[in-house]
Amino acid sequence: MALVPGPNFTRAVEHSFMSHERPFVLVIPAKGAPAALVPNLELGSWTMVGFEGAVFDWRDQTGYADAFAALMAHLKISSIGVEGQVMRVFVHHALKQAQSDLQIVDAEREISALRMVKTEKDVAALQLAIRISERALHRTLDTVKLGQSEKEIEQMLIQMLFAEGADDLSFTPIVAAGDNSARPHAHARADYAVKAGDALLIDFGAYKDGFAADITRTVFLDHVTDEGREVYDTVLKANLAGLDVTRAGVTAHEIDDAVIGVLEASPYADRIRTKTGHGLGRSVHEAPYIVRGNHMSLPAGTVYTNEPGLYQLGNFGVRIEDDVLITQDGYKLLTHFPKELMVLPC
Amino acid sequence: MALVPGPNFTRAVEHSFMSHERPFVLVIPAKGAPAALVPNLELGSWTMVGFEGAVFDWRDQTGYADAFAALMAHLKISSIGVEGQVMRVFVHHALKQAQSDLQIVDAEREISALRMVKTEKDVAALQLAIRISERALHRTLDTVKLGQSEKEIEQMLIQMLFAEGADDLSFTPIVAAGDNSARPHAHARADYAVKAGDALLIDFGAYKDGFAADITRTVFLDHVTDEGREVYDTVLKANLAGLDVTRAGVTAHEIDDAVIGVLEASPYADRIRTKTGHGLGRSVHEAPYIVRGNHMSLPAGTVYTNEPGLYQLGNFGVRIEDDVLITQDGYKLLTHFPKELMVLPC
Repeated sequence: MALVPGPNFTRAVEHSFMSHERPFVLVIPAKGAPAALVPNLELGSWTMVGFEGAVFDWRDQTGYADAFAALMAHLKISSIGVEGQVMRVFVHHALKQAQSDLQIVDAEREISALRMVKTEKDVAALQLAIRISERALHRTLDTVKLGQSEKEIEQMLIQMLFAEGADDLSFTPIVAAGDNSARPHAHARADYAVKAGDALLIDFGAYKDGFAADITRTVFLDHVTDEGREVYDTVLKANLAGLDVTRAGVTAHEIDDAVIGVLEASPYADRIRTKTGHGLGRSVHEAPYIVRGNHMSLPAGTVYTNEPGLYQLGNFGVRIEDDVLITQDGYKLLTHFPKELMVLPC
Repeated sequence: MALVPGPNFTRAVEHSFMSHERPFVLVIPAKGAPAALVPNLELGSWTMVGFEGAVFDWRDQTGYADAFAALMAHLKISSIGVEGQVMRVFVHHALKQAQSDLQIVDAEREISALRMVKTEKDVAALQLAIRISERALHRTLDTVKLGQSEKEIEQMLIQMLFAEGADDLSFTPIVAAGDNSARPHAHARADYAVKAGDALLIDFGAYKDGFAADITRTVFLDHVTDEGREVYDTVLKANLAGLDVTRAGVTAHEIDDAVIGVLEASPYADRIRTKTGHGLGRSVHEAPYIVRGNHMSLPAGTVYTNEPGLYQLGNFGVRIEDDVLITQDGYKLLTHFPKELMVLPC
């Protein structure tokens, strides 16, 4: 298999490298020693890895075609599994150019499955990332005032994440109020002032020690309508239904079916837009995808997001997202931020 | 051509979308109307684009294979240009699966060339991103004390970037002191305390309104050795030599040749690790790559980074990076942070 900079690569070599315009590939053959194609300017960092396989470096001035040719001549393989969600097309093309009969297989599922079950150390890193995130959210909500823009709230949240010790953001936070909360992947607006009665949906996470938190809470500003309360309660019920069926051996399908089943049975079934969630670890979205039809059985040690939502365009949306560790007998909630309906006095 | 979420996509539709595990493709054929394959949960955001072509959406529950098949049946094309540096292999495979005889060409160069010449509005956004970055660097350097870790300095820098109004980071900053500064893509260490005499290399940038700043300065803490001063002066001379030859019509090769030529003629030629730089705009690394052998002529409106460096493993590194706008008669420096050798009293 071939790895490129990203979560699997970082896990394999225990150092992280930037993914830019320069190809950087680690090949682990089924038999024999690994080999790597390394940009020359990364050789200084690469020595820290203690890599014992063959290294084919290349310089900006001469390009990478010869290094790919030498790598493939060295490997003598006929097919290679790649991370379809991480490797970009220019690397795919460079591999093909070096060996036109090479069979390139999308092995994203198989490769990423290797890190689906978390070690104790992985879980500790995730818990730290989540703790940082939750402290930042508390501090941010304490500062929210009617009339602020979504963007102002987002920038406060980001500063609090770094003040609490984040290495990075898991992703650009979603801070969306009122009608914008109905867009699952909304962008914070600089020109919308939050107002009394708005739902305020915040989806965010700190990245710490190589692991990504991913949390969503939806709060209401000043007051909540009956519709807001009913939608919130429905989403919370769905979230809890997913937790109820969670234990080692459950399938992704069964969790999603429990969660979406609650939403479908409600008066708000037409507001369903998304599946239940996804795996969480070194990557903010990774296997297992918690979706009907995915009959993969989930072992203890799997961490997934339980994030049901209901969204009505032009009105509002609610999402509640927990990070959940599957255990032998059930689950352990890694997120501790309260889930009861919260009305912010602001 | 096919665009996936990223800088070209954002420029085309004037909205930015997340790139995650869900395929999202905008196809602009040579003739006829564009078409798009859109994840169902993005349809709410997609309406803001005002897109008039055919839309093929797909849901998590059913997968995307049918949507790709319908898209390709609709398009009736035999070849497609893709962004090799942005599109990931799983989208490449999905296109091939939908139409096995489709010829997929890496058109990264041609597609990204469309945004190489910046508009006045683009330049204004870049200048804002740079101004935010420079203010954050000044505020950060004011707080540096001997004994701090690189990580502490990095986290202060990030907080200052957001306090000054950054939307995001252009990339995780490089904050590297002492021997770590000799690694061009170093990571800030939590376990290294900066000490008197260290070179402190900071490579960072704010991302604002869709544009990315990219600046490096290297300062010395408390005092500088003769070697440090000579290396610094050599790098600065190389940077200035690059500016000297910059005007509309210069080739990327000519700039790199002028810059690297200075380094090669110095006693530190064995410390050369990198080319001069890269284009800068919506992407922090984009065309044109300023490297010998790239004989592309650069028109007025091109923005590139002029970032020579000298790096000796086990010793230290120096890099000075400016963001440069090419004009008809010469250039305009977009970075204003001082470049004279700076010794921080700390």
